Amino acid sequence: MRVEIVAVGTELLLGQVVDTNSSWMSERLAESGLDCNFQVKVGDNLDRIAAAIRGSLARADAVIVCGGLGPTQDDITREAIAAVMGVELIREPEVLRAIEAVFADRGRPMSPSNARQADVPKGGRIISLVGTAPGLICPVGEQVIYAVPGVPWEMRAMLEDAVLPDLRSRGGMASVIMSRTLRTWGLGESVLAETVTPRLDALDALGAGAPTIAFLASGVEGIKLRVTVKADDAAAAAAALDAEEAALREILGDVVFGVDDETMEASVGKLLVEQGLTLGLAESYTGGLIASRIVAVPGASGWFTGGLVSYQSAVKFSVLGLPEGPVVSLEAVTAMASGVRDLLSCDVALATTGVAGPDPQDGHEPGTVFVGVALPGEEPFGRSLQLFGGRGGIREMGTITSLDYLRQRLLTRGRSNSHQ
Amino acid sequence: MRVEIVAVGTELLLGQVVDTNSSWMSERLAESGLDCNFQVKVGDNLDRIAAAIRGSLARADAVIVCGGLGPTQDDITREAIAAVMGVELIREPEVLRAIEAVFADRGRPMSPSNARQADVPKGGRIISLVGTAPGLICPVGEQVIYAVPGVPWEMRAMLEDAVLPDLRSRGGMASVIMSRTLRTWGLGESVLAETVTPRLDALDALGAGAPTIAFLASGVEGIKLRVTVKADDAAAAAAALDAEEAALREILGDVVFGVDDETMEASVGKLLVEQGLTLGLAESYTGGLIASRIVAVPGASGWFTGGLVSYQSAVKFSVLGLPEGPVVSLEAVTAMASGVRDLLSCDVALATTGVAGPDPQDGHEPGTVFVGVALPGEEPFGRSLQLFGGRGGIREMGTITSLDYLRQRLLTRGRSNSHQ
Repeated sequence: MRVEIVAVGTELLLGQVVDTNSSWMSERLAESGLDCNFQVKVGDNLDRIAAAIRGSLARADAVIVCGGLGPTQDDITREAIAAVMGVELIREPEVLRAIEAVFADRGRPMSPSNARQADVPKGGRIISLVGTAPGLICPVGEQVIYAVPGVPWEMRAMLEDAVLPDLRSRGGMASVIMSRTLRTWGLGESVLAETVTPRLDALDALGAGAPTIAFLASGVEGIKLRVTVKADDAAAAAAALDAEEAALREILGDVVFGVDDETMEASVGKLLVEQGLTLGLAESYTGGLIASRIVAVPGASGWFTGGLVSYQSAVKFSVLGLPEGPVVSLEAVTAMASGVRDLLSCDVALATTGVAGPDPQDGHEPGTVFVGVALPGEEPFGRSLQLFGGRGGIREMGTITSLDYLRQRLLTRGRSNSHQ
Repeated sequence: MRVEIVAVGTELLLGQVVDTNSSWMSERLAESGLDCNFQVKVGDNLDRIAAAIRGSLARADAVIVCGGLGPTQDDITREAIAAVMGVELIREPEVLRAIEAVFADRGRPMSPSNARQADVPKGGRIISLVGTAPGLICPVGEQVIYAVPGVPWEMRAMLEDAVLPDLRSRGGMASVIMSRTLRTWGLGESVLAETVTPRLDALDALGAGAPTIAFLASGVEGIKLRVTVKADDAAAAAAALDAEEAALREILGDVVFGVDDETMEASVGKLLVEQGLTLGLAESYTGGLIASRIVAVPGASGWFTGGLVSYQSAVKFSVLGLPEGPVVSLEAVTAMASGVRDLLSCDVALATTGVAGPDPQDGHEPGTVFVGVALPGEEPFGRSLQLFGGRGGIREMGTITSLDYLRQRLLTRGRSNSHQ
């Protein structure tokens, strides 16, 4: 099955809006095994939208038109599809009533132009009603034109729930495709790939129906392993994902820090809550980046006490009680962890110091950083790290690397406590 | 002049890379008064790239092909253009030597496939040599095909320096177009537009050659005013930009916080340096976001002492010396500013407290926040603000609003000192 995408909107051609919708759709199409050879962007012009759709239908089995389904006079995707099909637009009373109901629910007046959103090219059908812009499925002989709104969440819901299942059924393909992302930190891409290779080989040997695994290097978000399964129904797909996640976790262990949208800081928070501990920070070169990520975790106020951004050395001496001397060293970072644990009366402390650049400091080149951790009733400890990149890159990498260091120590602590 | 863009790369069709290059080029084309009615994305396939270029030439005067100029076997834009032109590829000895020189400079070995980058369709010419992927200008009768690399900074340099000037000269248009962005904070979009309207009217009255002004609402980056001028040469364009910037600053005053890439925090830093002051922070609901923005300013270590993220109330009491009681109030935020100024021994302190949500606190709904400032030798002062959005949005808006509050106080202080 060949599918093309036509993105509609003059704002796309003026560069005012980046067309991320097409990229998102492309990824989903590829995952479903559907080929996409061309994508077109076109403005809010009837003839040109129709020409773009005709061009796509000359090459492909299906075309997804994204955008131009709103209520304004600029929104003419419905008219363009009707022109390509050579049919008239029919105002569907049931759709009209549903749109009226949405406005009534929100207590907002409905303008006459909103009624246009109930227009359907004759022979087509409505996809569903998310928001107030219905999508369309319009067969043209053996081919098909889909229309989805340009509002990202509406587009995504319609693509997942209606367009992809329809495309897959037309192509005689598996009815459900589901993915799950395992997020990893600590292994480089090549080592991670080597580690997983035996599993990939085993899946290959299973043949066409087996789960597939894609590697996505995502910078400071780590390397993601995206597992995709095809199955006859959602329950079977979920079971296959569970089984594959278990197999990969068996191989990768603590390298996996989260699933799907779970962040490193959320994973650290979960461990702290499990162990009934609060966390404080002493940040030097990371300059508040660790704190700002942590406070974005829902419920962080339950376990995050606060932090000190001890940017200038004087603050490390006067507030954290470090002895005068070099502030980029293992001794300094462990003293920072210990000092901030006392200052904030928290159970656990994480500390960072290092050289973000551009100039060397204390005889260290940019990228030399230290991380320190103080756990309850233990002497603080830490390690040095060599990071690469500019100032911003070193800070970002240091933020995640430091959080991962704490995560590993908390995992070890949790296991040793549960063995006692 | 009609121009189309063909973006080349299978990674674009798989959704692995979002095509931001086309958006950037679109904006520049629109600014130059060049129409762009269609944009196409196509994979690394010779026939399909050639078909896309032919399609564009059937509709437009010029086509810009972006990507596929690298040294690998996948990079076949040169071959596709030659096929469309019906000519052979010629290896240009001078270009080959230049590519060899780049590798020699970097001390890296040059692979034989890099030599392919010296191939030019007969009748075409090299744009220039940024990096190792030369661009192309290939006339086809009265029409023209441009090729630029997909690496954003190489593409941008070639578009600005070669493609746009060539397009403008073909279209008989002004030879230089330059823009400058004034960044504002504090006025809503409609009030800002009203304030600037008399100036816009005056520019309109001047006719076709006058500067144009575009409004770009940019969320927490404020509202930008992009001034664009056309002139015969760069010096005249720069002078016209200077004059228009002066006219707008006369109207907008302190609402303008920066120019082009200058951030709010950089602007605050500049004022602190001018007045010889250091800054410390006490952040509650902003949770380190202000600090993390500040440390990204080059040279911040000269004026940024550090900060306390006093997330839990206990830290405000024990470390900043606030009296037990409500921590979301004007009294609390001024006490935080005063407390952190003492703690960190800095000259100026900025403090934030408030409710980011999702739950109310101290009887305040989410979005109720306070900002406090302590200046040298003055009683601390502050104000309340009502912000909107989710947790993340309230934090982001609060970060900039608080920095702007400090900026305004420093501007006032600087003026009153210079008047003494």
